[in-house]
Amino acid sequence: MDAEIIAIGSEMLTPQRVDTNSLYLTAELNKLGIEVVTKSVIGDDRERLADAVRRAVARSGIVVLSGGLGPTEDDVTREAVALALGRKLVFNPEIAEALEQRFSRARRKMAEVNKRQAFVIEGATVLANDRGTAPGQWVEESGAVAMLLPGPPHELQAMFERQCVPRLARIVPKQAIRTICLRIAGMGESDLDTLIAPVYKKYQNPATTILAANGDLQVHLRARCATAAEADALLAEVAGPIELLLGDRVYSRNGDPLEVVTGTMLRKLHATVSVAESCTGGMLGERITSVPGSSEYFAGGFITYSNDLKIELLGVPPEILAEHGAVSEQTAEAMAVGARRRTNSTYALSITGVAGPDGGSEAKPVGTVYMGLAGAGGTEVRRRQFLGDRQRIRVFSTQMALDMLRRKLACRG
Amino acid sequence: MDAEIIAIGSEMLTPQRVDTNSLYLTAELNKLGIEVVTKSVIGDDRERLADAVRRAVARSGIVVLSGGLGPTEDDVTREAVALALGRKLVFNPEIAEALEQRFSRARRKMAEVNKRQAFVIEGATVLANDRGTAPGQWVEESGAVAMLLPGPPHELQAMFERQCVPRLARIVPKQAIRTICLRIAGMGESDLDTLIAPVYKKYQNPATTILAANGDLQVHLRARCATAAEADALLAEVAGPIELLLGDRVYSRNGDPLEVVTGTMLRKLHATVSVAESCTGGMLGERITSVPGSSEYFAGGFITYSNDLKIELLGVPPEILAEHGAVSEQTAEAMAVGARRRTNSTYALSITGVAGPDGGSEAKPVGTVYMGLAGAGGTEVRRRQFLGDRQRIRVFSTQMALDMLRRKLACRG
Repeated sequence: MDAEIIAIGSEMLTPQRVDTNSLYLTAELNKLGIEVVTKSVIGDDRERLADAVRRAVARSGIVVLSGGLGPTEDDVTREAVALALGRKLVFNPEIAEALEQRFSRARRKMAEVNKRQAFVIEGATVLANDRGTAPGQWVEESGAVAMLLPGPPHELQAMFERQCVPRLARIVPKQAIRTICLRIAGMGESDLDTLIAPVYKKYQNPATTILAANGDLQVHLRARCATAAEADALLAEVAGPIELLLGDRVYSRNGDPLEVVTGTMLRKLHATVSVAESCTGGMLGERITSVPGSSEYFAGGFITYSNDLKIELLGVPPEILAEHGAVSEQTAEAMAVGARRRTNSTYALSITGVAGPDGGSEAKPVGTVYMGLAGAGGTEVRRRQFLGDRQRIRVFSTQMALDMLRRKLACRG
Repeated sequence: MDAEIIAIGSEMLTPQRVDTNSLYLTAELNKLGIEVVTKSVIGDDRERLADAVRRAVARSGIVVLSGGLGPTEDDVTREAVALALGRKLVFNPEIAEALEQRFSRARRKMAEVNKRQAFVIEGATVLANDRGTAPGQWVEESGAVAMLLPGPPHELQAMFERQCVPRLARIVPKQAIRTICLRIAGMGESDLDTLIAPVYKKYQNPATTILAANGDLQVHLRARCATAAEADALLAEVAGPIELLLGDRVYSRNGDPLEVVTGTMLRKLHATVSVAESCTGGMLGERITSVPGSSEYFAGGFITYSNDLKIELLGVPPEILAEHGAVSEQTAEAMAVGARRRTNSTYALSITGVAGPDGGSEAKPVGTVYMGLAGAGGTEVRRRQFLGDRQRIRVFSTQMALDMLRRKLACRG
């Protein structure tokens, strides 16, 4: 059984607001084995909403509506759903009385408009709202069900959990959904797909999604089975060969980002890391220290934009800068060695490159970046040519540097 | 003319991800006088997407699609739109060649699947993508237009701004929309609203929106008139009194962020700045250097998490750390002074605090942050108690530090 989620409210069609109720609803529906196939946001427009509801009910077994149940003229959900299903709205005196009592408990007089909230779609079950004034509704129509829920998240969540989940559990087939999220560094999206498509293409279940963002790739596998054990077995059957093909490019199996994974490895090994950054200007340090508790393994860092600071703070020999330039293998190496020595850390990462938009040359165009890793056993440096704008080049550089550290730590661990 | 936005990607139907491209797109469409009436998210399902496109094109003049233009099997947007419009997909050898060149510039071999990105809907105009591999498409159909844009935000934004906005401006009715975006630092959202509501509430046009994010407040004023001159006059009528009320808390009138504003001021004064960061771990340096050309005025920085490094790299006296602790006015002052001396910069900013979630005490709970600013005339330190999680506390701290610098530079300029 599939679900569609419709959020109602013109404020969610402005540049400032997104619908976040759908994230909670999706998580809860997934737990019941229900897939969300479409989400939409509709303004406070009765006809448009009625049209969307009509189509959603005809197409999907479960339609969850959030918002538009308030007392004012622009709260159109009740009317739109009634219109879509060709049913009347019926005044419910019990709701009206409960509303009056609620207001009098708060020592306030109920405004006349609040009576709008006492209208119920013919044949619908009323879902009580103990956290606000808008009651919800549960309407069944030729095998499908539509739920009308209030927009405020704490009202919606309480109502969905207590009153919709038990009802849904009775009507959907028992199913378990299990997921794996592999995170991969050091390769491009199309190379990844070429490599693993022969495995995942054979399966409709688990469903496989590849996601690329900021030099980081994710492979999501999602299995739906009658039992959790079957789903786990299916996941293993597909994820096993995929992991084998990807080898040490997989850095996480639970969705953790690279800075968390390397941090955990450093902590286990009682090792520390420092950074020496040029073109990334602090972004690598910022990523490492975004993890709570990173002070345990982060030794500190240097943001050395100028040659003078590279010489003075990191001890990069002036003749290396003169001969090879600030963006060079030799400088990256000397920066890493210097940061490690000055902070007395187990490892040090360095980044020096041309983030653009200016500063490129024929030999070292914009996007040329050297990343160094110094340890007790010596120093390694990688050169990469990243594409894209300043921000992208900087993010890719920090990703690559963290991945060098991860691979080094994996050899030790 | 109304617009619908359709985001494509099964990952946005998971509990973890929302579509954020639609916020940018809505802002840009609104500027052209175009209202967004529906937003939806569809998974990687060709038939379902084709159905949604068919209906959107029939109903609204403008349909913007984002995502699903990648090289893999689950990138279905090209095929779905072709299907919806009853058109063929045609192989475009020029795109294929441009893709090959892009890969060879990065010294990588193009995977065969990337050729999928060279297929164009019959009759569509190709929108070049200089930030990624997926070209966009612009298709007109019986008075309506559909735009196929790539999913990654920086690719989508560049393409929309450069190639869709000018084309849209030619087809939508001429209307002058003028906006002012005031950016404000150093006060809370409700205080701001209380202060300026008496001014803006009197006007429906311009429309006023207050936006709060990351310690930064924005007041957007948007006037729609027949001519630009009329719109400008209206804006001045409302923005003038608002600016007067806000005084020097307004740091930008064109939407520029604080790091750009301070950077421009530093450049004009031929001044430089360095940073000494503890709890922000590089974020302040990262923000300053996110601006192209920042090497002109950014002298460098120190990420000193540990006491040892504060002493060794910045020359913070050990007795200050022993007596007052690392999170103290005295340490913040010594850090700023040390960074300024070591880098020989005109100014130095320092940040030391408790970003949490651990490390708080009764006297210095999580969120306690000291920010220092050293210059030729001496050093000032501010203490703030920020609320929220680690990320929020770090962002607010960098915002406050940059604002201290801005106010100092404004006195000199």
